[in-house]
Amino acid sequence: MTIKETWIAYIHDLQDRICTVLEEADGTAKFIEDAWERPEGGGGKTRVIANGAVFEKGGVNTSIVFGEVTEAMRTQLKIDGHSWFACGLSLVIHPSNPFVPTVHCNYRMFELYNEAGEVMDRWFGGGTDLTPYYLFEEDAKHFHQTYKDACDKFDLNFYPSFKETCDNYFVNFHRNNERRGIGGIFYDYQRPDENRDVDFWVGLAKSCGNAFMQAYIPIVNKRKDMPYTEANKHWQEIRRGRYVEFNLVHDRGTLFGLKTNGRIESILMSLPPTVRFEYNYQPIAGSKEDELLQACLHPRDWLSIVTEEEKLAWAKASNSC
Amino acid sequence: MTIKETWIAYIHDLQDRICTVLEEADGTAKFIEDAWERPEGGGGKTRVIANGAVFEKGGVNTSIVFGEVTEAMRTQLKIDGHSWFACGLSLVIHPSNPFVPTVHCNYRMFELYNEAGEVMDRWFGGGTDLTPYYLFEEDAKHFHQTYKDACDKFDLNFYPSFKETCDNYFVNFHRNNERRGIGGIFYDYQRPDENRDVDFWVGLAKSCGNAFMQAYIPIVNKRKDMPYTEANKHWQEIRRGRYVEFNLVHDRGTLFGLKTNGRIESILMSLPPTVRFEYNYQPIAGSKEDELLQACLHPRDWLSIVTEEEKLAWAKASNSC
Repeated sequence: MTIKETWIAYIHDLQDRICTVLEEADGTAKFIEDAWERPEGGGGKTRVIANGAVFEKGGVNTSIVFGEVTEAMRTQLKIDGHSWFACGLSLVIHPSNPFVPTVHCNYRMFELYNEAGEVMDRWFGGGTDLTPYYLFEEDAKHFHQTYKDACDKFDLNFYPSFKETCDNYFVNFHRNNERRGIGGIFYDYQRPDENRDVDFWVGLAKSCGNAFMQAYIPIVNKRKDMPYTEANKHWQEIRRGRYVEFNLVHDRGTLFGLKTNGRIESILMSLPPTVRFEYNYQPIAGSKEDELLQACLHPRDWLSIVTEEEKLAWAKASNSC
Repeated sequence: MTIKETWIAYIHDLQDRICTVLEEADGTAKFIEDAWERPEGGGGKTRVIANGAVFEKGGVNTSIVFGEVTEAMRTQLKIDGHSWFACGLSLVIHPSNPFVPTVHCNYRMFELYNEAGEVMDRWFGGGTDLTPYYLFEEDAKHFHQTYKDACDKFDLNFYPSFKETCDNYFVNFHRNNERRGIGGIFYDYQRPDENRDVDFWVGLAKSCGNAFMQAYIPIVNKRKDMPYTEANKHWQEIRRGRYVEFNLVHDRGTLFGLKTNGRIESILMSLPPTVRFEYNYQPIAGSKEDELLQACLHPRDWLSIVTEEEKLAWAKASNSC
């Protein structure tokens, strides 16, 4: 198999596996697939789930798109070549229970060709990030630890570096640099070189892509049956407003799609199902809502934080000595 | 009074008068004022109304801002001068009843000074546009006719020209050029010259600003007690999603504010209170919802349309001959 074929096969396999585990976690709703074609070349498989027992709205999409390098790509994206190819998976899941976090992930490969059709350039990008509405430190630790483990097999510098890139990307710069959520990992423009070949980067993407189930599903199962109030739902919808603001004002992928004739419904499936915008809404200082807001304003090193549970476990262990 | 003083006095008087009539139309809720200052110079009076009997969320804001021309203004806005001044009124009203349309208006003056503090350039901009969720042709006609009357006193070419500018500005270009609503008037960069002095342009702004009450309030009073279903509300929230998309992706004023340290809460008060984003939502062909969508996709010359009521009135009149 060529690299392209390997990558496409992986992305489609990952889409199938993720949809299966999400359907299992939901227990009621099923994904519906919309296959679409792009007039300029390629197409995609958009899979959406809606009004489930757990997932209010979500999409797990793959796309394989290609074409000639246009003048707009040359000037606006500084892409220099004859033709290009891009293939990736992108998902956003919005649960209905405000104690279950929203999650986003994206893994993609880009290739650039010369007139002879030879690969001139190739790069990988990807990441997964969590957007909770209430903060459970143990969930944050579990999520980050899972991606640290997935990255550590490749390079011990990756997790801290990709975590910082993530914290600095998903930012509502117009709101005092408030982050969309509590981060995860994000990397882009990773090119094979003499030290790290294509297989290395495909391997990293597979490791991180596969980690999604382990990173997210246990959190869903732990929180999905927690009772919640109208006030909790209200806060979730306020925070979903910030999600909309980030995606429509700052997200490079969304804006690129909107401005280059992408498939609108597949791009905007990322927007939350129900949203509230209230004038100057501020959570009460010291409340659970404020605790989440503070975590978004001040990114933390989750893996150096000791939880109350851990303290208890250690206290027990030392008492029994 | 200087031109600046005349303009400021008018804008503040208009804010007072508009808030008064909107409170009367609502019958329950009152505007709350947040006065704010801008560190770089000036400030504003943000007046918001929320959870009223008629108005679910709204803001009627004035601002008077000034400062030195920054490098960013020079390069990004092509503004060449030593210092500047801007003053305007901006309002957005989101009623709760889906049969009452959302309305937006904005009237502003901009001045540019040389190092000696002399006026180098001055221009006026403004407009008012209607965003209904259901189409009542008689309301559309009334709204457009009111602004045509306000413009015709100054130049018979203004209404058709400003109507077209409005139709071409409030557009979700990423959705097949779907308009945000059914338009109104919009003009910008109108500079005094030997034929039309400052008083002319102030006069036009006053005529259009004053027309707001006559254009909007009768529609509110006619529709506010119409019974509606959950399905009507659902459709309103879907359409409000389009309002969010336009304001965050395309609106120059919003994006300029967000990217230049404007007062975020005053800028984003324009966003609707509750919003829905559903994957690939399409109204049923031929439904009342689709009728509105078609009006947004294909702007019409409202003043050349004859309503059923008018036809009946004419039929009666000719029968009685």
